Parts: sequence; structure tokens; C-alpha cells
Amino acid sequence: MSVLQRLGRAFRPCTRPGNRGIFNSAVRREEPPPNLRSSFAQAEARRGVQRPPAELPTPGWFRYSPWSDQYQGSLKTRVMIQSLFYAMAIALTADYLDKKVFPPPSEDAPPKYASPAELRIAIQKLQQAFPEAGRVDTSPDALKTTGSSENSYHPESPHSVVVRPKSTEDVVKTVNIAREYKVPITAYSGATSLEGHFSGYPSGSICLDMSGMDQILHINVEDSDLICQAGTRWEDINQTLKEKGIPLFFPLDPGPGATIGGMVGTGCSGTNAVRYGTAKAEWFLNLTVVLPNGEVIKTRKRARKSSAGFDTTKLFIGAEGTLGIVTEATLRLAPLVPTKVAMAQFPNVEQAVSAVQEILNTPYGPNVQCIELLDDHMMDAINNGGLVDNPYPVKDTLFFKIQGEDAVIKLASKTIQTLAKKHGSTKFQFAATNEEAENLWQNRKYALMSTLAAHPDSRCWTTDVCVPVSRLPQLVLETKKDLANAGLRSTIVGHVGDGNFHALILFRDDEELELVSEAVHRLVYRALALDGTCTGEHGVGVGKKEYLEVELGKGTVDLMKRVKKAVDPYNIMNPGKLYPD
Amino acid sequence: MSVLQRLGRAFRPCTRPGNRGIFNSAVRREEPPPNLRSSFAQAEARRGVQRPPAELPTPGWFRYSPWSDQYQGSLKTRVMIQSLFYAMAIALTADYLDKKVFPPPSEDAPPKYASPAELRIAIQKLQQAFPEAGRVDTSPDALKTTGSSENSYHPESPHSVVVRPKSTEDVVKTVNIAREYKVPITAYSGATSLEGHFSGYPSGSICLDMSGMDQILHINVEDSDLICQAGTRWEDINQTLKEKGIPLFFPLDPGPGATIGGMVGTGCSGTNAVRYGTAKAEWFLNLTVVLPNGEVIKTRKRARKSSAGFDTTKLFIGAEGTLGIVTEATLRLAPLVPTKVAMAQFPNVEQAVSAVQEILNTPYGPNVQCIELLDDHMMDAINNGGLVDNPYPVKDTLFFKIQGEDAVIKLASKTIQTLAKKHGSTKFQFAATNEEAENLWQNRKYALMSTLAAHPDSRCWTTDVCVPVSRLPQLVLETKKDLANAGLRSTIVGHVGDGNFHALILFRDDEELELVSEAVHRLVYRALALDGTCTGEHGVGVGKKEYLEVELGKGTVDLMKRVKKAVDPYNIMNPGKLYPD
Repeated sequence: MSVLQRLGRAFRPCTRPGNRGIFNSAVRREEPPPNLRSSFAQAEARRGVQRPPAELPTPGWFRYSPWSDQYQGSLKTRVMIQSLFYAMAIALTADYLDKKVFPPPSEDAPPKYASPAELRIAIQKLQQAFPEAGRVDTSPDALKTTGSSENSYHPESPHSVVVRPKSTEDVVKTVNIAREYKVPITAYSGATSLEGHFSGYPSGSICLDMSGMDQILHINVEDSDLICQAGTRWEDINQTLKEKGIPLFFPLDPGPGATIGGMVGTGCSGTNAVRYGTAKAEWFLNLTVVLPNGEVIKTRKRARKSSAGFDTTKLFIGAEGTLGIVTEATLRLAPLVPTKVAMAQFPNVEQAVSAVQEILNTPYGPNVQCIELLDDHMMDAINNGGLVDNPYPVKDTLFFKIQGEDAVIKLASKTIQTLAKKHGSTKFQFAATNEEAENLWQNRKYALMSTLAAHPDSRCWTTDVCVPVSRLPQLVLETKKDLANAGLRSTIVGHVGDGNFHALILFRDDEELELVSEAVHRLVYRALALDGTCTGEHGVGVGKKEYLEVELGKGTVDLMKRVKKAVDPYNIMNPGKLYPD
Repeated sequence: MSVLQRLGRAFRPCTRPGNRGIFNSAVRREEPPPNLRSSFAQAEARRGVQRPPAELPTPGWFRYSPWSDQYQGSLKTRVMIQSLFYAMAIALTADYLDKKVFPPPSEDAPPKYASPAELRIAIQKLQQAFPEAGRVDTSPDALKTTGSSENSYHPESPHSVVVRPKSTEDVVKTVNIAREYKVPITAYSGATSLEGHFSGYPSGSICLDMSGMDQILHINVEDSDLICQAGTRWEDINQTLKEKGIPLFFPLDPGPGATIGGMVGTGCSGTNAVRYGTAKAEWFLNLTVVLPNGEVIKTRKRARKSSAGFDTTKLFIGAEGTLGIVTEATLRLAPLVPTKVAMAQFPNVEQAVSAVQEILNTPYGPNVQCIELLDDHMMDAINNGGLVDNPYPVKDTLFFKIQGEDAVIKLASKTIQTLAKKHGSTKFQFAATNEEAENLWQNRKYALMSTLAAHPDSRCWTTDVCVPVSRLPQLVLETKKDLANAGLRSTIVGHVGDGNFHALILFRDDEELELVSEAVHRLVYRALALDGTCTGEHGVGVGKKEYLEVELGKGTVDLMKRVKKAVDPYNIMNPGKLYPD
């Protein structure tokens, strides 16, 4: 007999004289007086229930059980004890069911976003908050433009509404409504990103179009810094400084049209990075950020240096708008130094990279502002794109931008030329005029357009990876071979001084697009195997998030996710981007 | 009659015929049949309870109350209804008590650390984990040395035990024991920090002495990077590179003796920062970190650039060991460029700073590797410290380190000299020999020692703040006036190109120490009012944490705390430092 069965019998009213439960053998047995007969039996009798005649058991241990016929206490006590017992059972069962049926939200549970009805209310609230015409836009055109990119081929969703803020306070209002109704919110401005960073969320999302917040608020010439809004284009900043005759410039130069907010989000760089570093260096002195909780913070003061704790500015650089919306930034500026542009052809990428490594480690290395690799296909595209008068040699080529006063450039060029020759360069040539230099550089900066102009029947998937410089030749060589094997046409340009490499792969139809997608996948794994990163400057967005864990390890990605959760517990800031699912 | 009283009467068995509760006036009254008489009354009768003869009330509304004498349902129903009622009451009470007695831990509740007994067990576990002699040290000498600094005058506590790891795995073992027993753990190596960063925790703490992990693991000459352990001194790295004939160096140059781990933790910089930036720039390519949960992460790959999300490397730079223990780092190296050292005297700090601003914005600005301000007191201290043969003029002075090949330095010097003269410099002079240059620079690097050597009767409180460069003259001027008013002697040195400024304030006794402490407090507020930071490169530690909220605002400090809590929920990593209480 199991313990449970034994217990059950002890609680059951005893009907056979010999069976008195398990604990009551020592209890004195005795016929109860008639007035102590079970009130339960009496009630049964009242209702005329017929029981077979049975020998009444002597009351034993079970006279204390309120379930027993022999219970001797008052009816009130009996009801009370039974009730409490059942009450406990009910309470415990309810608690158990509660936990089973409504488990506490798991750490990894997908967040619950606004239902279509809630989304409609949120949009109404936005319209009430910004009654002026054009500030809140739900026109299909606006939703499509802001939710998709011509240069990205990742799955996309349109936004549900576009809000056009004019100030940090406007952004706060929008974020507060987004949080209240749990609507994802994505910042948008230059729309130059390539990995689907600004596309909408399938269940509905708010697009915060920052492009109207494009004012330069203050220029501190004596401190070489400048305060501007997040929608300001880097080219406009440099143009403004030039027009004002201020001999300073902002050295981060990503794709044409990019804005400060996007540059922060992506952790951008560009051709100047070999000399000036990237967005993750010290060009952003501070940021004004609207956090997911609606708070406005300024990450730091305006001093150039601070060791007052870890730099929260850096938390938002490369976070792709997932931790907060940047509304203003203080930028450090660099002195404008005269430059000259030159080019040198090389028999192959390996020799070109060797030349770069040696040049950068001379005392004239710091005079190299840019050092760009363009492969033979890219040179061919420039020739065929109809943008140059005299065709360039179709060879792997380095473009240099050398900085300094004339006398210094002369000294630097001598060293650079000697080293280029040593590594097999057949020709080293300065642009004859400033105009030619400008054109040469434009051809590089507009590599995508040159590539497309040379192949008017095609579209182009642009991707980037970055490896330690010494691994670049192997990466380029293997990638070119792989693309050729796949029957794909492409051009290659690279910020060779940093080991950063862009492939612009062409395709004409969906079938080729599929091949391109597979080739990009192989390219990323090739870079990771060479101690590289899945993206040097384009960011993760939708397109690269599947590689993050392979690249950084689960621990580092978990750390990023933990920070994200701490800052944005409802995951309303640009969900679906950056963090692997 | 109150609502409660009315309800109470409705539930009470009715004894007077006229009072039938409040809801039952419309109920048909009728004598119940005997077998439906209240079982309660019957039970009373059985127990011989005498009731005063009373007219039996007609059953009304209360015949539905299972608490009423007139209840007419079966015993089972009666029990069931009462049970449900009690169950609700129990559940609600339990829930209420649960919340009252066991409130969820408040966000700001102080963490619970190991009791003295638990601490003893933790130390035993450490001894078992590292049985070799000297690996776990509880000698009073070791505890005192590692828990206090000769150069800091903040409240200090000794550690409870010193652990000397040899590998990342050893650090993991120690962190796991620290976490299991909730013992605070503080990393220690160069011990050069000035704000009490590595002092012990009052309730007991583990000191992780990283100075044994001082190996350079790999030098990638072709990629200009180097992998080393966290206990490696920056001077040893540069010495090793020199000895191996590798023309590269690591440009972060904080106080002599500082190690990589501490440099990461403090977010250090030094004299080279004007040309190369600080620890928060891109010199740390990646870090290997043991997180509070015992996980080992590598923050990034070895590529120079990456925009694969926000840079978790930066999370640990300036975090003062509060988010994890750095065990290894990959450092980017810069090409070694020849330098020459020069000095120029100025009539006052204002003119010196104006000269610096103009010099740095010329095309030769990038050739200025260092530009240091030493005030008249500092020059006097150098003269009197017995370290120079020919005394320098006792005037506000700039020390320059200009880089480039001889021809370039000649060009740069011409420009620099012209501008210095324009801003009132009376003398511009190169060090005649390399030895003199070396000595000159040593005098600057060892400013603390020079200051103490010149005042052998005194001790010295060193502090630093940083402001936008244009505000530096005002800061220096007001500070010198304030110190003079307080009757304090001091020397001032500054990384003037960054607006970073050190005051070395002398004192002889506790009374003067108190005056110094107050002067430092005023200095910090002066810097904050000028859009500056409470510390440019010394870090927060214990000494500056009270200023963090004033400087950054509550929102930014809260963000830092939220990140800290997400990464180190038990607050075992260097508690009491950095974050304001």
C-alpha cells in the first residue's frame, strides 16, 4: 500500500470496525453519544438518504477529521476547516495554473507590438501632436520611399507613417507615442545605407525622417568643433566651412548624401580613414540622444578629451538607431591641408598592397590622406562609363591623395614613388591640374555610378568586408576567382590602407541576383576566416546580422543584446536590424 | 447606518422578525419545513446550547448566505461556497503579504556581499584553485600595497586577498569564485592611477594582481599590430619594438609604469594625444575580457576597421574594471617617425594657448606630436629639482615634439617659430642634442618627481581637468589665482593641444591637505562651468565620482548605471568606483 493510499484511507470515514486508519490504533474506541453523531449523517437523514445499515465504528483518530462522520466539533468549525483546506487547494492550484498558463515573459520572447487598431490610434496621436501639414505623412509614396532602398536587395517592409521632426522635442514626442503604443520606430535621413537599415517593420512602424533637421547650429572655430543637427549632410558641412573661409573640415567621408545621424548609426568611415580613422575614433565629441524611455541625454561635454567613465557616445556609434535617436552632434574638425592626387598602376593586387604597407610605415605615411585600390574591372568601368576624356590603363591601380604644403608633397612623393617602383609599379603620375585631380577622385567616390554607367543593362549589389591589411591580397585574389567561377561581373574598390574592400557585383535578373547573394555569403565567410569582419563600414542592418555571432562569438553578441535590452526593454528602436534573431 | 454596517447585518443571522437585511424585503416569507431547518441550529441544539425562546424569523435574503443559520442548501454546497470565499481571501492576503514582506529588490538596493565567514570560504576556494606558492597571498604587506596608493588621498581600504593569475583561465576561475561568494573583485597592475581606482572594498575584496600577465604574445609587423597580456607596460612594448628593430610604436603614453589593462580601464592618454588621440580612439583593436558571469569574450576581430555593431571594445575603455577584467589586447601600432624637441617661452598662458591653436591648424599641425605647457612654477621646479645643468627661464613655456624627416622638421619649425613669435614668444630653441631633447622630455614626463624633488618637505596631490582649448587660458588664470589665494604652492603642466591641464598641488600637513582638497573641488567646478570635464585622462575612481552627474547629467549617468547593471548584476566588479552613489 502506497503512502498516498494509506493517507487516503486515514482521511476516509471508516466503515469497517477493524479499519481505523494508520495513526489511530492507540485511540480509545467508544460509541459516541447520540448528540455527537455526525451532523453530515443527520443532514443525510433529513434529506431522506437511505444508507445500508452498518455497524457504527467507534470514533478514533478520525473523529478529528472534519470529513469523517464521527467528527465531534461544531458544524461551524467543521465547515471552517473544510473550507480552509479547499481554499488552500484552490489557491495553490490557481497559482500553479497561473504559472503554467501565463508564464512570465521569457528573456527571448518576441516583444508584442501594436495591433493594427493600436497602430491606427498611434498615428492619430501623432497627427494630433503635429497638426501642421506634411509633418505626419501616410501617403503611399512617402511610405515606400522611406521603407525601401534601390541599392539593397534584402527583404523590406514599408513604414506605416512618416513623421518629420524639426527639433529634439519633436523626436521626444514621437518616441513617447511609439513607446506608449509599442510601435517600432526607425530613423531615416540620407538613405544611402546598403544593408536595409531603414526599412520598416512588418507589423507596422514609424519612420522618423530626420532630413529636415539639417542645421549647423554653431561653429567654434577657435576650438575646431561644430554643433549640428543629425540630418545634416557631411558634404554640406564641408561646403559651409569652405564658403565661410574657415580652414577646417570634417574628415569622415562615407557615400555621397550621407547625414551625420546615419553616419553615427552605421559607424561609417570612407577614403580618409587611413589618415583620420573612422566614426569610432574621436570625431564625435558628443551626441544628443533621445533614449527609448523618452529621456534626452547629452553624452559628453565639448572638451576634446575626457576619461569620465566609459564613453556613452560610443554606445550609439554603430548601434544603427537601436539604442536611441541621435538628434544633435558636436563634431571635431581637422585643419584643411592642401592635397595632391596621384595614381600608380601595379601588375597585381598583391604587389599593390605590399607597396601600401611599406609606404604607410615611412615618416611620410602620415602625409597619405587616402590610398585607394581600384581593380582592372573598375578602371575599365571608369573608362567605359563615359566620364573620362583619356582612358586609364586597365590595370590594378592605386589612387593616392597626399597632403601637405607643396614642398612636403614633393618630398613625400619621392619616397612614395620609389617604394611603388620597388613593388613593381610601372607608372606613377600626378594629376596635372586641380580639375583632373578632382575628376579622378570623383571617379573613385562615385564608383557605384561609374560601375552602373559602364553596364547600363545591369543593377549592382554593393557589399564590403575588412581584413588585416596583410590578408587583403589573398581575399581579393580568391574573391575575383570565385566571382569569375560563378560567372558574375564585378568591380572592386578598396580602402587598401585599412584592409577594407568593396565588391560591386552586377546582375541582370533574379537568377543572377541569387548567384550574387550566394557569392556575398562566401565572401563574408572568406573574410571571417582571415581574421576579418563581415562589414568594414556599411554596417549590419538586415543583410549581415546572420554573420555577427560567427564573427564576434556568442558571448560578445549576448553582451550587445544585454545592453540593448537594458536601454530599450520594449525593443521599439529599429527592431529587426543589427542583432541576430 | 454605514454601508459596511448594513452589509454586516445582512450577513448576520437575523434574530428580530422585523429585521430581514437590506435586500430581502420582496422575498416570500414562509416557515421552513423541519428537514430544511438550519443545520447550524440543529448542531447547536445537539450540543445543548440554550437559546432564549425567539420567534423563528422567516427565511429571507440571508437564506442564500452560507454563513447564515437559515441557509437551506446542502452541507456540501455550503462548504463549497465558503471555501471559494476563503480561497479568494487567502489568495489576496497571500499576494498582499508576499508583496509587503518580500518586496522585489529595488533597483537601487545596495548589493549584498559576502559575510566575513563567506569571505573566508572564498579565500579557501581560491587557495584550492591556485595551490602554488605566492599565487594567493593574504600577507598584510601585499594587502596594503595593492589596496592603497601613495599618490592618492581618498579614503582607502585594503583588499582581503591578492590573487596572481597567469592566464585568462586563471582570471575566469577567480571571477567565478568571486561571483559565487559575492566578493568584490578589483584588477591591479601598474598602480599608477591617482583617483583611488584600485583600493579595496570595505566589506572585503579580491585583488587580481595582473602584473604577472605581462607577455607580448605576438607582433604582426606587416599589419602594424601587436597582441599582449593586460599586465604589459606600454614602455616595455615600445622598448621591445625598438630592440627588435621594428620601426613601430604604441603612441598612448600615460604615466611611467602604467600597463595596458589599466590604460584601458582609465581611458588614458598622454603627451602624444594631440597627434594620436586617446585610448578612446582606435588603438585598441580588440580586447579579451572576462565578464562578471565568467564568460570570456573577444570584443572584435583583428581588422583595423569594423562597423559590425556598436564597438564593445569601447564599453571597457574608461569603465575602470567595473564591467569586466581585460586579460589581453590587440594594439594598433604607429610608424616611428623621427622627432625633434624644442621649447618656447611666452609672457603668459593666454598667448601661449593662442599660439598653439594657430600652429595646430596649419598644414604643419599634424607634424606636432606633442605640445606641452609648463607654467613658471613648473619651470622653477625643474631648475630646482637638480635635474638640469643650465637653468631654464622661469616663464610659461611650451615644449614641442615635432615629427618628420629633417627636411620636413625644418619647414615645420619655420612656420611654428613664426607663429610663436607672432603670439609674443621671446625665445624658440631646439634641443642641441638628442640627449638634451631626451632630458627635456623626461623633465616633462616626470613632472611629479621634478615637483617633489624641488619641494622635498612636501607631498603632492595631482589632479586633472580638461576644457575646450579656447577656455584653457581662463581656467589656468583663475586656478593660479585661486591657489595663491588659498596659500597653496603648485605647479601646472598641460597637454595644451587638447585643453587638458594638470595641477600638482603641494602640501605639508593635514591642514594643508584639507585646503588642497577644497581647491581641487573648486577647480573641477570651474572646468565644468567652462564646458569641460572633471577628468581629462586620470579617470573617475573614488575621487571624481561625485562630479559625474553634474558633468554628464542624470540621464547619461543613469544610462551608464543601466549598462553596468545589465553586465554586472551583482556589482562584484570594482564596486564603489566610477558610478556616483
